[in-house]
Amino acid sequence: MQQQNISSMTVTEKLAALRRAMLEHQIDAYVVPSTDPHQSEYPAPRWAGREWLSGFTGSAGTLVVTLHESKLWTDGRYFAQADTELADVETELMKDRVAGTPSIEDWLGSTLMSGQNVGADGRVISATTARRMAKKLADNDLNLILEEDLLRGIWSDRPEVPNQPVFEHEADLAGESWQDRLERMMAWQGEQGLDYYVISALDEVAWLLNIRGSDIEFNPLCVAYLVVGTQGDHALFAAPRPEFREWTEKAPDGQSIQTHDYKKISSFLRRVNASNADIGFDPATLSSRLATYAGGDECSQIASPIPGWKAIKNEVALGHLRQTMKHDAVALLRLFHWLKTSDEEIYEADVARKLTALRAEQPGYVTDSFPAIVGYAGNGAIIHYRAPEEGSAKLEKKGLLLLDSGGQYTSGTTDITRTIPMGEVTDEMRENYTRVLMGHIDLAMARFPVGTTGVQLDTLARMPLWSACLNYGHGTGHGVGYFLNVHEGPMGIHSRVNAANGRVPLAAGMVLSNEPGFYKEGEYGIRIENLVAVRPVEGQDGWLEFEDLTVFPINRSLVKEDMLALPQVQWLDQYNQWVATEMKELLSAEENAFLLEMIGG
Amino acid sequence: MQQQNISSMTVTEKLAALRRAMLEHQIDAYVVPSTDPHQSEYPAPRWAGREWLSGFTGSAGTLVVTLHESKLWTDGRYFAQADTELADVETELMKDRVAGTPSIEDWLGSTLMSGQNVGADGRVISATTARRMAKKLADNDLNLILEEDLLRGIWSDRPEVPNQPVFEHEADLAGESWQDRLERMMAWQGEQGLDYYVISALDEVAWLLNIRGSDIEFNPLCVAYLVVGTQGDHALFAAPRPEFREWTEKAPDGQSIQTHDYKKISSFLRRVNASNADIGFDPATLSSRLATYAGGDECSQIASPIPGWKAIKNEVALGHLRQTMKHDAVALLRLFHWLKTSDEEIYEADVARKLTALRAEQPGYVTDSFPAIVGYAGNGAIIHYRAPEEGSAKLEKKGLLLLDSGGQYTSGTTDITRTIPMGEVTDEMRENYTRVLMGHIDLAMARFPVGTTGVQLDTLARMPLWSACLNYGHGTGHGVGYFLNVHEGPMGIHSRVNAANGRVPLAAGMVLSNEPGFYKEGEYGIRIENLVAVRPVEGQDGWLEFEDLTVFPINRSLVKEDMLALPQVQWLDQYNQWVATEMKELLSAEENAFLLEMIGG
Repeated sequence: MQQQNISSMTVTEKLAALRRAMLEHQIDAYVVPSTDPHQSEYPAPRWAGREWLSGFTGSAGTLVVTLHESKLWTDGRYFAQADTELADVETELMKDRVAGTPSIEDWLGSTLMSGQNVGADGRVISATTARRMAKKLADNDLNLILEEDLLRGIWSDRPEVPNQPVFEHEADLAGESWQDRLERMMAWQGEQGLDYYVISALDEVAWLLNIRGSDIEFNPLCVAYLVVGTQGDHALFAAPRPEFREWTEKAPDGQSIQTHDYKKISSFLRRVNASNADIGFDPATLSSRLATYAGGDECSQIASPIPGWKAIKNEVALGHLRQTMKHDAVALLRLFHWLKTSDEEIYEADVARKLTALRAEQPGYVTDSFPAIVGYAGNGAIIHYRAPEEGSAKLEKKGLLLLDSGGQYTSGTTDITRTIPMGEVTDEMRENYTRVLMGHIDLAMARFPVGTTGVQLDTLARMPLWSACLNYGHGTGHGVGYFLNVHEGPMGIHSRVNAANGRVPLAAGMVLSNEPGFYKEGEYGIRIENLVAVRPVEGQDGWLEFEDLTVFPINRSLVKEDMLALPQVQWLDQYNQWVATEMKELLSAEENAFLLEMIGG
Repeated sequence: MQQQNISSMTVTEKLAALRRAMLEHQIDAYVVPSTDPHQSEYPAPRWAGREWLSGFTGSAGTLVVTLHESKLWTDGRYFAQADTELADVETELMKDRVAGTPSIEDWLGSTLMSGQNVGADGRVISATTARRMAKKLADNDLNLILEEDLLRGIWSDRPEVPNQPVFEHEADLAGESWQDRLERMMAWQGEQGLDYYVISALDEVAWLLNIRGSDIEFNPLCVAYLVVGTQGDHALFAAPRPEFREWTEKAPDGQSIQTHDYKKISSFLRRVNASNADIGFDPATLSSRLATYAGGDECSQIASPIPGWKAIKNEVALGHLRQTMKHDAVALLRLFHWLKTSDEEIYEADVARKLTALRAEQPGYVTDSFPAIVGYAGNGAIIHYRAPEEGSAKLEKKGLLLLDSGGQYTSGTTDITRTIPMGEVTDEMRENYTRVLMGHIDLAMARFPVGTTGVQLDTLARMPLWSACLNYGHGTGHGVGYFLNVHEGPMGIHSRVNAANGRVPLAAGMVLSNEPGFYKEGEYGIRIENLVAVRPVEGQDGWLEFEDLTVFPINRSLVKEDMLALPQVQWLDQYNQWVATEMKELLSAEENAFLLEMIGG
């Protein structure tokens, strides 16, 4: 069948088809990013156009196709993967963030001729990105054309807008009803002098309406836009679902929530814009195309307040999260116990499957929060490693296993990494494990004045490695959603001083990861990750500290005790002791014994 | 005499005269900043208009006068001083950087009526500041008028443009001839496609021409503009001096250095602009008025490359600086020895005078690099304290003395702070001294990857204090010039994450201070300051560390040893031992014995 023929097109055939479309539309280069219309970190399959077209499956990367060449820009996490996946096609890897690699715009400037046209789909490029791209291309004497989705005519088996069931995240779990959250939003809009605000980021919609779904793997989201009316006239745009009645019928007095098909957002915004209403949107998350429909530069382009609100977890949520951490720990402890006692041959992929099954037994479990990273030996050094279903590495009775995983529970999102010895380990491994642990502890123990930001604290976690001229190539901490995305803003703990999120002050109620690491290519990876909540220091106005949320022993046999300073030893003892106490009643006698063995040293 | 009458005008009379001028020029509010035409940190008396008009003598502060009110904005360093100095006049203190204090523009917006005029002298406001002010005032519906210097008609005894003698900083001291530096600059201008670049910052002129003078107290500078011609046609604008022949006659073949009177810069820039030449300037340091004459937005407004070049000290300079540090230490050690052994009553001001006299005996001494901060007991807690000539505090045989001072030598600029016990001290003082020292040591020991910036390292110096919910209200480190300003950019070590200089990567050859502190109002101040140079870690490509340049013992009797971690104790022992060895041959037997006593513990 024709349908089948098309879906089985090779990358070469797809690129040829794209180039025919480019010629037809007088586009000299076409840029295909890995984003969706909501600027999600992980887009639903409908928007996996870059993956479909290029064959490269990494989560980040931009394909650029001219009539004669094609290039894929991606960052260090994916160089090896891109090399493999692009081996048999014309596309060349461009190593992003590596000295000497030109930006996409500069490369286009050197390849195309003055006045030529660069195309991209304005439906998946944010207003902010579009503005930046247009300026940089203009500096290179090129035009940016955002009107054409050239994949439309080629990608005939493209998935639909997802329409998985949704449900309400009840107020006794969320700690705040969606009706109250709508009020907060309307009050803010009133202060800004807006009639409407367009919410595009999926986790912002989910948070504001306490709505959860499964439109995107691992992210409990519903693909939707929400337009909040300052006078109470709200509109939700999503694939139709009967469950939406939960919201339309429970809208507070004097308010209404109209539901419309996902694709109606364009005409809705054009209509509202024509009515001369004051519309606001966040140009970082609304697509360039919808921004234009909403009125473009005539609109109030104001960063959404929701990321800041969402980052501060309320006491009800923190209470649930603390409990959830214990249940999550039970699953992981049973996994390690199984690893230790099993006689079978175990492969990395088995560990991931087993862990998912163990988490699924825990109360409130919905799904994993991301594909578990099970990195044995050299695979542990691949920071975003995902063991293949078939042919993953077999665990031997030696070396290190890095295990980074998490769950989505209705009572919270977890994310934890532990590194354990599978048998004999080298002195170097223990030394570097200890350095990572020292950094983890120094950050965990930090007290800091209100106003302190992630880039300032990041150094604490790195210093024990830096002292030995060692480092790790990822951030130290990311925000974590509450039964939402495992990565969320607006803050972050990392060393990229020019990234805005590193300069957002930490505030009480924020939940972040603390996850320094060390990676030796081809040999081993080490990472120790807990989730922490920011809280006020008791009796010290203006001072903050971290509360450890993650309840899981830190393996003592890998620690070189003489490297630790006394306060670090004390922290480790107290932490492990606290974990043993907290977990005790949830574990069998055998499991408790196993736990004590892990922390015994 | 009329002249005398005017010079003895009271602040009230001056403000009245200003308001008459405002009425005449239809100016509704007049802003008087503390800057000069070169955006110097310390302006020459000719540009001390804000001080003259307001009576407030602090180094930072902006006076705003409306027809009915006057306000002075200054920061926390000067609140107490401003309270005192403004006690008898109408002017009210506005506490800058304190929550609730409006910005000048917002205050004007709330005080004036729509469409009213705010005046300021465009000769002393930078192009960048003028643009920012104009925008913020426009947001408040006010106009900015930069044409009028309203002090002109009032300040009749205003000092002239300074014309102190100048001399060449010889290449064997500077490590690079000014002819070579001119070549560097011309090459850079060529790359930028410029015909001329206007250098406005005084220390940039001094560095590029290896010219030194004494036009500004403590800063060995000549008040001048330099316009570098990419084709070799340079022009220097300054009060005429015979010594300029040194430069005009030694201009390299094919190049010329024309000298013109300081005030001719305006007509020169207008003429060059009219000739359609491509002129570049740094809008952060060129005045708004000269920027307009040069062509304003038609010009290339490019940050000067000189701060970045100047920050990297060459090996010759570092060699001289290491020697200079030893001589500087001899003066300070003799001062402390005198303090210890003198039977006389000693006041803070005596210490400052004595120290200047002792420094003056050292080879290459030119002047102090700033007025010594001699803060006994509670005065030590006033961060920018300057003991009055008469009536300063008497040193008792108890408590702490904070002494921050430095010298300008032809072979380098020094800046050092030590805190010493004058007799009995409390346990709290020792505890906090130890915390400050721990932070100092942790920063001194840091190794860090290339690309690391000041805001990332700042945290190391603060953490031992932060652990106890203590902090200090100033930066941890500033760049230091080489026989130039004691404060220079472009980098800095501090916690203000949104200030650009904290995000400049540290690089080998940079010289910075390392000066954490702790201050208890009314009781004592503690600061420990060394100068350090950034250098590569031997054998570790891509890694940097600090070399201690300051050679001076760190008092051991104030240290609570049990608070230090082992590496900190080792650092302290090694540092003091190194100091003793380095200084030995320059000291008498008695002085050596005194030194050993200081480090003995």
